[in-house]
Amino acid sequence: MSTTTKTLDFQTDPTRYRHWKLEVRPPIAELKMDVRENAGVFGGYELKLNSYDIGVDIELNDAIQRLRFEHPEVRAVILSSAKGNMFCAGANIRMLGVAGHGHKVNFCKFTNETRNSIEDASEFSGQRYLCAINGTAAGGGYELALATDYLILIDDGNAAVALPEVPLLAVLPGTGGLTRVVDKRKVRRDRADIFCAVEEGIKGKRAVEWRLVDEVVPSSRFKPRVEEKALELAALSDRPVDAKGISLTPLQRTITADEIHYPHLEIRINRTEQHAVLNIQGPADAAPASAKDAEAQGANWYVLALARELDDAILHLRFNEPAIGTLIFKSSGDSSLAMSHDHFMNSAADDWFVRETRLYWKRVLKRLDLTSRTLFALIEPGSCFAGFLAEVLFAMDRSYMLAGNFQDDPRPEATLILSAGNFGPYPMSNGLTRLQTRFLGEPETLVKAATLIDQPLNAEQADAAGLITAALDDIDWEDEIRLLLEERRSFSPDACTGMEANLRFPGPETLETKIFGRLTAWQNWIFQRPNAVGEKGALKLYGTGQQPVYDRERV
Amino acid sequence: MSTTTKTLDFQTDPTRYRHWKLEVRPPIAELKMDVRENAGVFGGYELKLNSYDIGVDIELNDAIQRLRFEHPEVRAVILSSAKGNMFCAGANIRMLGVAGHGHKVNFCKFTNETRNSIEDASEFSGQRYLCAINGTAAGGGYELALATDYLILIDDGNAAVALPEVPLLAVLPGTGGLTRVVDKRKVRRDRADIFCAVEEGIKGKRAVEWRLVDEVVPSSRFKPRVEEKALELAALSDRPVDAKGISLTPLQRTITADEIHYPHLEIRINRTEQHAVLNIQGPADAAPASAKDAEAQGANWYVLALARELDDAILHLRFNEPAIGTLIFKSSGDSSLAMSHDHFMNSAADDWFVRETRLYWKRVLKRLDLTSRTLFALIEPGSCFAGFLAEVLFAMDRSYMLAGNFQDDPRPEATLILSAGNFGPYPMSNGLTRLQTRFLGEPETLVKAATLIDQPLNAEQADAAGLITAALDDIDWEDEIRLLLEERRSFSPDACTGMEANLRFPGPETLETKIFGRLTAWQNWIFQRPNAVGEKGALKLYGTGQQPVYDRERV
Repeated sequence: MSTTTKTLDFQTDPTRYRHWKLEVRPPIAELKMDVRENAGVFGGYELKLNSYDIGVDIELNDAIQRLRFEHPEVRAVILSSAKGNMFCAGANIRMLGVAGHGHKVNFCKFTNETRNSIEDASEFSGQRYLCAINGTAAGGGYELALATDYLILIDDGNAAVALPEVPLLAVLPGTGGLTRVVDKRKVRRDRADIFCAVEEGIKGKRAVEWRLVDEVVPSSRFKPRVEEKALELAALSDRPVDAKGISLTPLQRTITADEIHYPHLEIRINRTEQHAVLNIQGPADAAPASAKDAEAQGANWYVLALARELDDAILHLRFNEPAIGTLIFKSSGDSSLAMSHDHFMNSAADDWFVRETRLYWKRVLKRLDLTSRTLFALIEPGSCFAGFLAEVLFAMDRSYMLAGNFQDDPRPEATLILSAGNFGPYPMSNGLTRLQTRFLGEPETLVKAATLIDQPLNAEQADAAGLITAALDDIDWEDEIRLLLEERRSFSPDACTGMEANLRFPGPETLETKIFGRLTAWQNWIFQRPNAVGEKGALKLYGTGQQPVYDRERV
Repeated sequence: MSTTTKTLDFQTDPTRYRHWKLEVRPPIAELKMDVRENAGVFGGYELKLNSYDIGVDIELNDAIQRLRFEHPEVRAVILSSAKGNMFCAGANIRMLGVAGHGHKVNFCKFTNETRNSIEDASEFSGQRYLCAINGTAAGGGYELALATDYLILIDDGNAAVALPEVPLLAVLPGTGGLTRVVDKRKVRRDRADIFCAVEEGIKGKRAVEWRLVDEVVPSSRFKPRVEEKALELAALSDRPVDAKGISLTPLQRTITADEIHYPHLEIRINRTEQHAVLNIQGPADAAPASAKDAEAQGANWYVLALARELDDAILHLRFNEPAIGTLIFKSSGDSSLAMSHDHFMNSAADDWFVRETRLYWKRVLKRLDLTSRTLFALIEPGSCFAGFLAEVLFAMDRSYMLAGNFQDDPRPEATLILSAGNFGPYPMSNGLTRLQTRFLGEPETLVKAATLIDQPLNAEQADAAGLITAALDDIDWEDEIRLLLEERRSFSPDACTGMEANLRFPGPETLETKIFGRLTAWQNWIFQRPNAVGEKGALKLYGTGQQPVYDRERV
């Protein structure tokens, strides 16, 4: 098996699921994990005991998305297992043992994002998740449960929750487990320390006492109690009763050697220069006339369509193009049409479908923030970085804007337009908007930016308002950009990743930033240490019966 | 050179400084960096251009401590350089190139703690730091400047501030630079990104505009302006005008093969079991009668003496005993005498010397929190974990307390006593007290704990109050503790380090926790990557004229 040469596809749909069963019985849906052992993405390992690889999580991610868009009638989701005594054994260890470092890191990042999207649905979308832990939930299995609002553990004398990574594998729980245990569930730290040392986990009353689960219920009463609690959670939902779902139709996508085409996004990869240009096409039409109209457009509505395409593209680049170190964002289109969609979203924000679409745009932007590639934007004549599209600029490490025009270029001068959308609906994982984060040191500039809403700003105005990194004129443009890209390419990819992870998230930290900033970085470190991945490391020897041999020095 | 076999000593005094000149001219002191090239701790490299190794920082740490205790008359400290055009070139790169991973990590941790202690002096001790950047401040040199309250850069056409680590060395600035740039100085993130890419740094007006320094001043007016600003900062101080300094007399310490003895702390190292027992001796006498009395006792006052001993011991164990993975804290003495010192500190908290001592105790506890060893406490008969000494327990990963007595043991039953000292004066780096952190999920237990102040609690009471991990009886004690230690020793040291770093700091994040949690973890990761430390890595090839060869894949 090779985890770096196999191309991963993040598109799927329920008819193709091999590992999950989705039952919809409004107002509840049940998502049952039923991993097919011999259907690992890479081959060479068996997905026993509901353990998972990226393929299982791609389906989970898809199911969560579809529940939000296709099932407005679903107000609570039960996560459960279709296997007997095992809820989920976590990430497949043999897969981890043979996977390359890059795949492990990206795998953990994606699974984390998927779990965050469960919390996002519970918090903002009126679709609360409940975990029916009907068998042991170990490692990533318990971490999956931790992402839900309410954990009910079956009391059958066997089933336990566990984070056995440290004693068993010499790595950390990689999907937010440590952070969620002490920060979300607020387990006392010495108890958390014990919990993480007990390979077989904790069950029964003590699991409740220690706040590891919310309830334990005997086998005989388990099913009805889960159903009852799900209905209770469903009753809290603000989802409309009469809405019809939006079908997430298959993405139109063409992937060739160095290009990827979607209807609203074109990607050209320059392998020599190791960068990719992502050109966002602005909308061809004005916004829907009403929420009903937007619902009629469904997956064809520009904003949702673009969100899906960009989301897919980021994941594709992360997993399938690891050597493409810099992503260059451009746009082309009519800013006034983009603004029309922005205004529409603002005015129809209460509609369930518009709300879902905005929440999705928020998550796509977060996925961009968390992508360990250098992010540059080039704002050129004919671009349409306006409102929600301008938000892409504020996710960049740097943005350069052309002042004036190129010679003989008929396209209109580049402008940037702010909207209310840049001041609230798309917060970063640190809880602040990108402009709040940008202007942490100069709140007066943030106040001033709010007065510029709806005004097309040219390069000088955008520069004066602090909204771009620099304005360049047409004489310097080509050389300057070329030099900047060459410079970036001369740096160590690892150093860039570390630097960007530290500069992008100033200000407050949240559960999410802790998971991605603190926990992930420690996990990455451990994933490289001989004690885990060396010839005598725990991850390598797992299942062989041999004991790992550790270098005993602490660093 | 070997960075792991050389024993480091953290004790020094100004008569022995080789790298710093301390001038005291009240209300100002000037601390001039003047690194002696051929006086590197390990040998094999030259400390050119005011670059530093751990030896230089040990002296800096000593100077900062002495300024606080020995010089109440000093109200502002100027950090400057005695070299011509170079303020400080940062950590010595050849030293980093040959140092082992463990030394690099511990070196960065210690230098970070030293810079934090500068900020602590500025914020709490009425001793504000000002940086006279009278030459280029690069890498760790600029990071040192960033720890001060006010940065004045000389405008001589050459001097710049720079963080050239990413372009030059393929690592991150390791002493909080990235975090302080965006979080303390709140530099706009795209500017920070550019700043970190410009090897030669930024100077003049732009350095001020970008908030990298507070002021640039032409050479001719530099000295008087620095003096003027220092006096301005000094005027804000609340240090007493008539106080006499406390001499930090040499520590009494005996180090033998497996034991370290201080007057109030005994350490026994068990190399087979890879743990050390640190036994804190309680005070032999009641507290000083007054602040004057405490000042007369000076460095012999129990609390200050113990703080110095414990501080030294932690550093010794970190650097010189890397294979000792678990630190077991015990205490023996008279709890009522410990409480007498605690009450005294509470009532005399406004006295400058008592304040300094408490601030020091706070920093020692923080150093303990940040020590990457498993921390266990055993609370046995005859122990004196009371008030400020009980705070040690709340820094532990786990604490076990004996219920009742051992057979034929005449020592009094173990008790634990809370005081006001556990509810405020010694916050962790997350800004919360250890009890607030412990009871994040059960604030009612915190409220209840406050009602237990001054009451000796036996094991059952302490357990019921949630203050210990578990109470064990004498029949189980020996076996249980042995098994726990064996279990911990069977885990990967790296996994323990990562796990502890994530479980110890729930709740809010601060500049400090970001530096130690996020930045350090990323730096540790990068410090292991071939792009930095491999045969063709930037750190290895620095100064050879050869270009590093990077694996271009992003992870």
